[in-house]
Amino acid sequence: MTGVASNDRGFTLGDGLFETVLARGGRLVQWGEHMARLRNGCEALGLPVPAADACEARAFAALDAAGLRNGRAAVRLTWSAGPGGRGLDRPADPAPQLVAGAAPLADGGADVALATVAIRRNPTSPAARHKTLAYLDNVLARREARASGADEALMLSTAGDLACAAAANLFWIREERLFTPALECGVLGGTVRAALLADAGAVEIVAKPEALAGAGAVFLTNSLIGLQPVRAVDGIDVDVGHPWLAELAALVDALE
Amino acid sequence: MTGVASNDRGFTLGDGLFETVLARGGRLVQWGEHMARLRNGCEALGLPVPAADACEARAFAALDAAGLRNGRAAVRLTWSAGPGGRGLDRPADPAPQLVAGAAPLADGGADVALATVAIRRNPTSPAARHKTLAYLDNVLARREARASGADEALMLSTAGDLACAAAANLFWIREERLFTPALECGVLGGTVRAALLADAGAVEIVAKPEALAGAGAVFLTNSLIGLQPVRAVDGIDVDVGHPWLAELAALVDALE
Repeated sequence: MTGVASNDRGFTLGDGLFETVLARGGRLVQWGEHMARLRNGCEALGLPVPAADACEARAFAALDAAGLRNGRAAVRLTWSAGPGGRGLDRPADPAPQLVAGAAPLADGGADVALATVAIRRNPTSPAARHKTLAYLDNVLARREARASGADEALMLSTAGDLACAAAANLFWIREERLFTPALECGVLGGTVRAALLADAGAVEIVAKPEALAGAGAVFLTNSLIGLQPVRAVDGIDVDVGHPWLAELAALVDALE
Repeated sequence: MTGVASNDRGFTLGDGLFETVLARGGRLVQWGEHMARLRNGCEALGLPVPAADACEARAFAALDAAGLRNGRAAVRLTWSAGPGGRGLDRPADPAPQLVAGAAPLADGGADVALATVAIRRNPTSPAARHKTLAYLDNVLARREARASGADEALMLSTAGDLACAAAANLFWIREERLFTPALECGVLGGTVRAALLADAGAVEIVAKPEALAGAGAVFLTNSLIGLQPVRAVDGIDVDVGHPWLAELAALVDALE
């Protein structure tokens, strides 16, 4: 395990970004989309952009080191603001750090129960809209959901609109249409989410939690789990037999 | 510089807490208050509580290592959730890490100009109310304020109420009363703030930014800067000659 300096601003302040990428059969899935999101995040945080080929080399090196080059694995790339002195202001000449790691990944697909949590998404915070090292709200939202017996959190925005799960985007099907909360609800722009907007006719919406009541299906997406059906929301069963689910899961599994 | 593991959850997720303590003349100022706040933070995050005497020993060791035992210095204690596997959930048997560092500290006292920033405080987020490693909003708020030519950020809550600065609590004087935003506005419970509530008759309030217009004085507090007068808010001058300012600064400087 490589280390980072204990004054690295990623450690001291959450000042940095990360990407989690699915590696499958020797390929980094949606690699271009992940690099584009990382670039957007760097712009929002005012960080320099790492070279995409350095990121790719580090990702494959991490897979090799873990003996996962051709398996199914999660690659995490971390791009921190690097060592810094005391206080909030970055040093005049920052030296960002790139860290990569890989871990084996089981097949996804198991359905999950959601519980609405008290921690909400803050649409004014870059940390809600980008994949930053300040991920504590997500950690605590998941923890809160698990404490109530659920598998994953349903997070609302501070305005009370539907937002996302602790580590996934949210979708639902209603009257033969596919919906997902708009980014302005404090939502991370997931790469699978983007694919479903582009290729499956999903529609972005600002909606209250009541929109899930009576939905034909509810599901989560992220790079690593793919599509994960939701079987219950706050103890109320949701049908996991909707015919679109298998079709959309196949679309997600085919992403390259 | 000691290092931390690159899979430390403080680095990867902002999962942890910190304290910044003023060391002056061989003494850790408001030490008991800092340890109480750290305990509260651990409770909110579900982390074990570090032993106070281990923290104290590490703080003094950091001062010694920096040659600052008897000077004026900033001690930072970091208590991270420790190494963790992939994903949001902590390992079953977490091994939190304690890191300490010390840096010289110039005398405070210079007045500052504030600029209201777009990033707001989220009252539902433990990261807004505790001193956590997910401090990125504060970093970016400060950055936004500096980009507009100010020294420090004025942050509102997502509800639009006055909250705090990026790295300090906010106070103002109006009609011979001393006010500070209530914690429910997404405010960190500062140790100097607590002293002014206890010893200077300060009153907690939920107030819109208009409350600062025509205030007799506006100032910031934190452990390291003490009391810092505000000379302007969004380009509008604020009087820094109010007679209470020197009196309150003396009270803050005498904290032990």
